[in-house]
Amino acid sequence: LAANDRETGTVHVDVWRFGMAHPGDLSALQAAIADGRVAAAEIVAIIGKTEGNGGVNDFTRGYFTLALTHLLAGHLAEDAAAIARRLPVILSGGTEGVLSPHYTVFTRRPGPPAAAGDKRLAIGIAMVPALPPEAIGRQAQIDAVEAAVHAAMRDAGITDPADVRFVQVKAGCLTGARQAAAAARGKTTATPDSGRSMALSRVAGAFGVARALGEAPAERLGEAQLLVDFGVTSAVASVSSGVEVEGVEVVVLGNVAHAGGPFRISSRPMADALDLPAVTQVLADLGLAAAPQLSPGDQGRVAAMLVKCEPARSGRIRGHRHTMLDDTDINAQRHIRGAVGAICAAVIGDGRIFVSGGAENQGPDGGGLVAVIAAA
Amino acid sequence: LAANDRETGTVHVDVWRFGMAHPGDLSALQAAIADGRVAAAEIVAIIGKTEGNGGVNDFTRGYFTLALTHLLAGHLAEDAAAIARRLPVILSGGTEGVLSPHYTVFTRRPGPPAAAGDKRLAIGIAMVPALPPEAIGRQAQIDAVEAAVHAAMRDAGITDPADVRFVQVKAGCLTGARQAAAAARGKTTATPDSGRSMALSRVAGAFGVARALGEAPAERLGEAQLLVDFGVTSAVASVSSGVEVEGVEVVVLGNVAHAGGPFRISSRPMADALDLPAVTQVLADLGLAAAPQLSPGDQGRVAAMLVKCEPARSGRIRGHRHTMLDDTDINAQRHIRGAVGAICAAVIGDGRIFVSGGAENQGPDGGGLVAVIAAA
Amino acid sequence: LAANDRETGTVHVDVWRFGMAHPGDLSALQAAIADGRVAAAEIVAIIGKTEGNGGVNDFTRGYFTLALTHLLAGHLAEDAAAIARRLPVILSGGTEGVLSPHYTVFTRRPGPPAAAGDKRLAIGIAMVPALPPEAIGRQAQIDAVEAAVHAAMRDAGITDPADVRFVQVKAGCLTGARQAAAAARGKTTATPDSGRSMALSRVAGAFGVARALGEAPAERLGEAQLLVDFGVTSAVASVSSGVEVEGVEVVVLGNVAHAGGPFRISSRPMADALDLPAVTQVLADLGLAAAPQLSPGDQGRVAAMLVKCEPARSGRIRGHRHTMLDDTDINAQRHIRGAVGAICAAVIGDGRIFVSGGAENQGPDGGGLVAVIAAA
Amino acid sequence: LAANDRETGTVHVDVWRFGMAHPGDLSALQAAIADGRVAAAEIVAIIGKTEGNGGVNDFTRGYFTLALTHLLAGHLAEDAAAIARRLPVILSGGTEGVLSPHYTVFTRRPGPPAAAGDKRLAIGIAMVPALPPEAIGRQAQIDAVEAAVHAAMRDAGITDPADVRFVQVKAGCLTGARQAAAAARGKTTATPDSGRSMALSRVAGAFGVARALGEAPAERLGEAQLLVDFGVTSAVASVSSGVEVEGVEVVVLGNVAHAGGPFRISSRPMADALDLPAVTQVLADLGLAAAPQLSPGDQGRVAAMLVKCEPARSGRIRGHRHTMLDDTDINAQRHIRGAVGAICAAVIGDGRIFVSGGAENQGPDGGGLVAVIAAA
Repeated sequence: LAANDRETGTVHVDVWRFGMAHPGDLSALQAAIADGRVAAAEIVAIIGKTEGNGGVNDFTRGYFTLALTHLLAGHLAEDAAAIARRLPVILSGGTEGVLSPHYTVFTRRPGPPAAAGDKRLAIGIAMVPALPPEAIGRQAQIDAVEAAVHAAMRDAGITDPADVRFVQVKAGCLTGARQAAAAARGKTTATPDSGRSMALSRVAGAFGVARALGEAPAERLGEAQLLVDFGVTSAVASVSSGVEVEGVEVVVLGNVAHAGGPFRISSRPMADALDLPAVTQVLADLGLAAAPQLSPGDQGRVAAMLVKCEPARSGRIRGHRHTMLDDTDINAQRHIRGAVGAICAAVIGDGRIFVSGGAENQGPDGGGLVAVIAAA
Repeated sequence: LAANDRETGTVHVDVWRFGMAHPGDLSALQAAIADGRVAAAEIVAIIGKTEGNGGVNDFTRGYFTLALTHLLAGHLAEDAAAIARRLPVILSGGTEGVLSPHYTVFTRRPGPPAAAGDKRLAIGIAMVPALPPEAIGRQAQIDAVEAAVHAAMRDAGITDPADVRFVQVKAGCLTGARQAAAAARGKTTATPDSGRSMALSRVAGAFGVARALGEAPAERLGEAQLLVDFGVTSAVASVSSGVEVEGVEVVVLGNVAHAGGPFRISSRPMADALDLPAVTQVLADLGLAAAPQLSPGDQGRVAAMLVKCEPARSGRIRGHRHTMLDDTDINAQRHIRGAVGAICAAVIGDGRIFVSGGAENQGPDGGGLVAVIAAA
Repeated sequence: LAANDRETGTVHVDVWRFGMAHPGDLSALQAAIADGRVAAAEIVAIIGKTEGNGGVNDFTRGYFTLALTHLLAGHLAEDAAAIARRLPVILSGGTEGVLSPHYTVFTRRPGPPAAAGDKRLAIGIAMVPALPPEAIGRQAQIDAVEAAVHAAMRDAGITDPADVRFVQVKAGCLTGARQAAAAARGKTTATPDSGRSMALSRVAGAFGVARALGEAPAERLGEAQLLVDFGVTSAVASVSSGVEVEGVEVVVLGNVAHAGGPFRISSRPMADALDLPAVTQVLADLGLAAAPQLSPGDQGRVAAMLVKCEPARSGRIRGHRHTMLDDTDINAQRHIRGAVGAICAAVIGDGRIFVSGGAENQGPDGGGLVAVIAAA
Repeated sequence: LAANDRETGTVHVDVWRFGMAHPGDLSALQAAIADGRVAAAEIVAIIGKTEGNGGVNDFTRGYFTLALTHLLAGHLAEDAAAIARRLPVILSGGTEGVLSPHYTVFTRRPGPPAAAGDKRLAIGIAMVPALPPEAIGRQAQIDAVEAAVHAAMRDAGITDPADVRFVQVKAGCLTGARQAAAAARGKTTATPDSGRSMALSRVAGAFGVARALGEAPAERLGEAQLLVDFGVTSAVASVSSGVEVEGVEVVVLGNVAHAGGPFRISSRPMADALDLPAVTQVLADLGLAAAPQLSPGDQGRVAAMLVKCEPARSGRIRGHRHTMLDDTDINAQRHIRGAVGAICAAVIGDGRIFVSGGAENQGPDGGGLVAVIAAA
């Protein structure tokens, strides 16, 4: 486990959100490093939304990562490949509808703690090297994620699971090539279907988080329940799966007394895709009033919005048929990202939202979760 | 002009909203006719949302219309083709995201007027027989729509343009076959591009409405301005274009003193795709409070929601880049319908919304308009 | 079983191929009935290619069927619903690339047999009423197809399985709604994934054909082998699955001595998607030389070309990676239909080819089969 | 003009074809450089097929280029940006159907000439720095391409236009962002539609080639004829347009006496998308017999196949309707690449074909051209 398992003192976490003109465009970060706003060495994680399709053949994520790691290599005494191994770059492809391609950079440095009685944003990470294809969507992946969440909590200095507000996991999936590679070694994989492997991988991630945080009994969170039991959920897990990673990357976000930057995070489950009240409530948790939309001033306080959602497997939303799951032309995850992303964007008045589809076991079935990081 | 140009007495208009299992499924209307809720002879218009792609090759609209007209032919002394010629069946393909396939049936019969000082929903229609392909996106189409709107207003008994709250227009577009047919007669068409012909046809419709209602000077609403001047708009026009119609169909909706049913209509322009306040305001116009979402009781008062929207041609929404117009995989209209439809659905808590893309000159540039019909 | 189980005398089978302007356009058949070329009462089957996406939400097939049955009802003493129950209308959606929307009408009437020593085209059909959702992709479906193939062979007057050259099967699939219906009755379905249900349904059809014709031992053709064992194949089965049918429709084609029309049929397995030699060989079987393309004269002898194909599950074709199975934007079946259809079209110089994707267990794994009906 | 305008002695050109696991995978070239087969310094051009959608938002091309230039920078005393400025990397996105992602590397070094009376493959290149957005699809672009073709011919040492067999041009297109940039400088662009800008850019390229080679009178090859006159064509131009380039890149291929490597090139126009005879003839030009498919031995002689094709604007192929131009779900260029690519692949038994859509004015209208490079 290549975790950042360090002695945690008091820290200051900053959050930077940058737009991009295309998936290889890191010019905004480059400018921020050049003018001293961002210190390359303090970057601990990047979470972004690129404009691919979000599916197995979405290469915008790999393109961004290649461009990013080469950029950072120019500023650090590390080569691009080494940076890729230790820095979580968690990208969700697909900026459907009003969504805007962007990336959020988290930096961390020593700093004074929050005022007494206050808690501020902390971040911790963990990186698991490549899992073999046969581990995807199986117990080995669940276990790897669980261990990585524990490591990332230690890295963040979070000891109480209740302080964790959001756990972003990125895990690999199967492709035709990876399945062939496994077969060549005499191994079977969990499914021959690459799309289904992405779903299995997401649920394995959610189970790993739920185990690490004690959100449900471990016996309900095993390989046999993957894509079978949708009733056991993590309230804070957000898992993406994609071809551009081979291992597991974990980012834990929470509020702690030993952190002293300007930001706080809150998160709420979404009961279904139309759960607009959950969106306004999570903003209210942070002192932001949407009536019905944030004022321009309050919009400026929002540093990041992170959403997980899912096309209801029942085929219905509040009793009315939806068509996402039967659409051969547009992938269901693209549909739901565009819809739930738009609802959230309308409330904050800004399309720069990280929305990831595939919320199986991440929040209520047919719903998902919404998190906001805002300046206090 | 095959308009319903009749002696208008006082009327009672009803609005029925039905779901469907597929585009040929009229079983809900069939049941309503069978049990006497709906009188087939009183149906004056149908506005619906089918689950196609909304583009040139969306045949779900033709399928629905064929099934509908055969159903009605079984209850009326008319054959299916005659019904298709006199009944507006205005369908928008595309139930992206949380949208739900459904159709709204408008019936009209003599009845007592509204109480003194009150106005209730009135409806009028007009049908223009087939326009030749060379008229699409040209002055001849603008003129045809203008005349049809006047006819539909007379049919509705609306004399004051200010009483008109929504004008739905459906017009044809060019296909490869129609262009070839025009060429065979030595005629040129406005464009060789079928997708572009849909846009031209929509703007010609918007210009026709704006001329009929005096929303802008006629000299700014001519063929030369089509897809050139986006600054002159109709505040109440909603125009769809599709391969399934060859002429023009117009439905005018407004509130008048001589109508006495349970419903009222209101509409508002949307300034951009994130104009959530416009949605809550149009509900407030009708006495419905969304805070942030309608209560279940108020949801029951909503009879129909009709929305027009558009991917901002600037490539930006509130300063942030969107990717709808550069997407080769998903048509931009599908993107925007899914996004704006979801925002509206989240406010009323119901995905049965008529959302039509392509709002060129229908409401503010980059925005559109939203209308609601609700029980008083 | 609603089979046409009749006393078979000697027959004359004709084959008519018509184009269409859209999925509801039956004007070419209407004209052929009107001018006496085709007798509506003699139509025994229709096999066609409509321009939908070929997936779960392809409604072009239902649209065509509705238009067709209403057309025939106007010429026969039966209503449209009764015709739909007894006439196989087997449609494959998707005219990718150079493919052209068309339908092939098979008529049958008493007539003199072939000359001694010759065999000509015979056709037989069988219709299975609706199967419940829980039967899809299960043993009950395999058994239903097997019985239907036996019935169709009797209807064709074919006693020797070796005389069967092509068996077209159309079967239903699961949708969200059908799964919900099953769940409401307390039944589980074979899969929650509608796309996967189409594949299961196709293999169940192939297994049913193989059992009926004795192409493999019955113990290798059971429910447990569905989408597991791709090594046991039918050399003549072509199975489509779609939302527009709820039961099973079977059409058997072969050459027999008691048939005396102008046509013969031949078929060949295709070893892979690039098996161009199989295409030229099946033409050569019928005395047609492609060097490399049929002469215009020989093109006129071709009455129908029927093809089944499949994106190789290995992810490779002749050692080189293909990308069909990892494409989130375009369904893999659309890819392969466009490719193999083009190869076949290039050889005969005509895009009116019935190409159906999803050839699991229908011909060699990764390949499929090609059949041609041509005038002797 | 940053052309490689050098003193040309006799040369030896080699052609290497490599597969890739994803658009950022250059491992095959890396291995070839590592083991000495390919000298990085001798690489003069790369032509490749990546697995994107080939449209405005296809970023697989930029990804490949970024990975390639970083790889070469590791072997040469140049940084990645400098390599990108001087090395043509011409990529066509879209490996529809049986096509396989791959890239062809051309190397050139001094070497003995061909035997007397023989001609062998020569290559020349030219690079035009960024054109402003307002030049795209206008006379300035035509002129820039014409000058670049002349420069590339000089670089190849080709003086007789008849020796030119293939000219690959890559040019930029408009995006929303580029149009906004032009507008900010007070410039109008040729079209507001990014898809249309790709077509304009392709035709401007074809016109530039035709002018340089004297294939048609210059007065028929001006800005006013772009996307208006499809009757004037280049028989050897293949033009791609994409968001990843901002200038113009030209590669000229021909056979000359002063070149002495193992390869020859031939090309033929394709009359339409079903012109299978053109494919077999271009192989026959090089002594390769397809009957109907190349033998495995002859497959080994083929080094590259380069194809340009187009969905017939008439909406018909050999009299039968195709649906490519009216399809809202799949871009027409994706359709035609998959179809014509499959036809070519079937003849040579190999899916590693460079097939580029958008053949306006490149070969006969509705057709295109096919070129093959093979070992003598």
